[in-house]
Amino acid sequence: MNSDAEQGRDVHFSRMCVIGVGLIGGSLARAARRAGLCGTIIGAGRGEAHLERARELGVIDEFDTNIAAAVSDADLVVVAVPMGAMSAVLREVAMGLPAGAVVTDVGSAKASVVADARAVMAGRVADFVPGHPIAGTEKSGVEASFAELFEGRRVILTPLDETRVAAAAQVRGLWEAVGAEVVEMPVEHHDEVLAATSHLPHVLAYQLVDTLARLDDRIEIFDFAAGGFRDFTRIASSDPDMWHDICVANSSAIVEVLQRFQEDLRRLGEAIQHGDSDAIQDVFSRAKQARDQFCGD
Amino acid sequence: MNSDAEQGRDVHFSRMCVIGVGLIGGSLARAARRAGLCGTIIGAGRGEAHLERARELGVIDEFDTNIAAAVSDADLVVVAVPMGAMSAVLREVAMGLPAGAVVTDVGSAKASVVADARAVMAGRVADFVPGHPIAGTEKSGVEASFAELFEGRRVILTPLDETRVAAAAQVRGLWEAVGAEVVEMPVEHHDEVLAATSHLPHVLAYQLVDTLARLDDRIEIFDFAAGGFRDFTRIASSDPDMWHDICVANSSAIVEVLQRFQEDLRRLGEAIQHGDSDAIQDVFSRAKQARDQFCGD
Repeated sequence: MNSDAEQGRDVHFSRMCVIGVGLIGGSLARAARRAGLCGTIIGAGRGEAHLERARELGVIDEFDTNIAAAVSDADLVVVAVPMGAMSAVLREVAMGLPAGAVVTDVGSAKASVVADARAVMAGRVADFVPGHPIAGTEKSGVEASFAELFEGRRVILTPLDETRVAAAAQVRGLWEAVGAEVVEMPVEHHDEVLAATSHLPHVLAYQLVDTLARLDDRIEIFDFAAGGFRDFTRIASSDPDMWHDICVANSSAIVEVLQRFQEDLRRLGEAIQHGDSDAIQDVFSRAKQARDQFCGD
Repeated sequence: MNSDAEQGRDVHFSRMCVIGVGLIGGSLARAARRAGLCGTIIGAGRGEAHLERARELGVIDEFDTNIAAAVSDADLVVVAVPMGAMSAVLREVAMGLPAGAVVTDVGSAKASVVADARAVMAGRVADFVPGHPIAGTEKSGVEASFAELFEGRRVILTPLDETRVAAAAQVRGLWEAVGAEVVEMPVEHHDEVLAATSHLPHVLAYQLVDTLARLDDRIEIFDFAAGGFRDFTRIASSDPDMWHDICVANSSAIVEVLQRFQEDLRRLGEAIQHGDSDAIQDVFSRAKQARDQFCGD
């Protein structure tokens, strides 16, 4: 247990404001309440019916559709909205944010969020701790949220040069208290790693299902899909709007690793076409070894 | 219950010979025994230690490493070897096969097996019923076999013009009696459907893992892989030799659907690069809708 983790144990917020009470925002609210990390939880966002539902479920205590008002008494603000809404939301947060309050987000790409924050948060950027929990399911919405979502999962923080040390420590403490392991890395490195392990697989899964769905005999084709196909394409059932936003926000890192993949795939396709057994075996054997080593099951 | 299924109920074999006692062959032996479909089960294949292990596990009753000898008293022969061994094994089967016996296989591509059978089985092609159970896991070997593997799964049979009707009915009866749903289709159609739903996903999963494994910071990259990545790449832990053989055996159908996928992926990559939101949304939305509709979870 290092000193950062010790520090995390003492974290407590009297008013935690969650903007965007979906799978991630809702799960963090549930987890924070269960761990006794906060007094009141206030929800915010555009959908009043949705926020009412979150209150009925006990995920939040109260809500306000006006973001600047919602954050006005908060000491912690968690922004858990789609990447495309980040800039507008951070602007409203900065407008209402009381002195001393800390802001964090859960966006799946960090360079674009940091650019948004620098553009619209003015003097409050020092209170902003960019974050990304490596957790989620293909489901979305507050109904799918659960308090255990972050247990044993990694959370990446990408604090900026100007970030207050105390703000970063509080956000670290929040995540550690709900069972996550916190890792810090530079913004650009986060975006490269996530482009490779998360964004590219989603792009491939979506494209594969769409390609097959547009074949003439698509109904029959899916009839003969086995368990491996279901696993392989499960992430293609994720929210398309959310993933559109991620692809736009992290396009350069995604395009870079996608191009590398396309070049490798082109070579593998040629090997299959020409019956080049050594080349096929090389790829398949290295892949199995790597996956067995790093992923386990 | 149709007449074919009724017919299947009466199926019984006094000596069932399983050549290649791995995940599929071993599971079919277990399932056939449990369903009371056979008297003695004889295993065959090249690995004596492996066959001894299968006997210890009770999957087979006896074994013979000489295939022609192993099939000499059998009334049912199931060939469950890798695609690359199919031709040599079918040749030996034809050498020892008694009159009236039925032969089937479980190969993942059918045109190459049929070509092999026509080339090496001479007058016994009429007793051969090409088959393919759409079942399996990323594991392999007799230790991974289990009697329930085929319950509720599809089995595709691709009988030839010259196949004896009674032979096809017996193989259908075998699969139905172990809980599978049997479907018949032409050889070429089988190979196209499986190229799309099984072979292409395996190629993509293997290539993705290999591409990432060859990035400089690969260890860290896999450290940040979440549940979606594990699901997406699970099939890359499959047996590389088996999948090499499948890619060689079904190369033309795989290359055709791969090229279609590559062209679609190239267009999606350009959309991501240029921030073409409509094009990205179209692919992602269609894919989610198709997967939710056809795959469920």
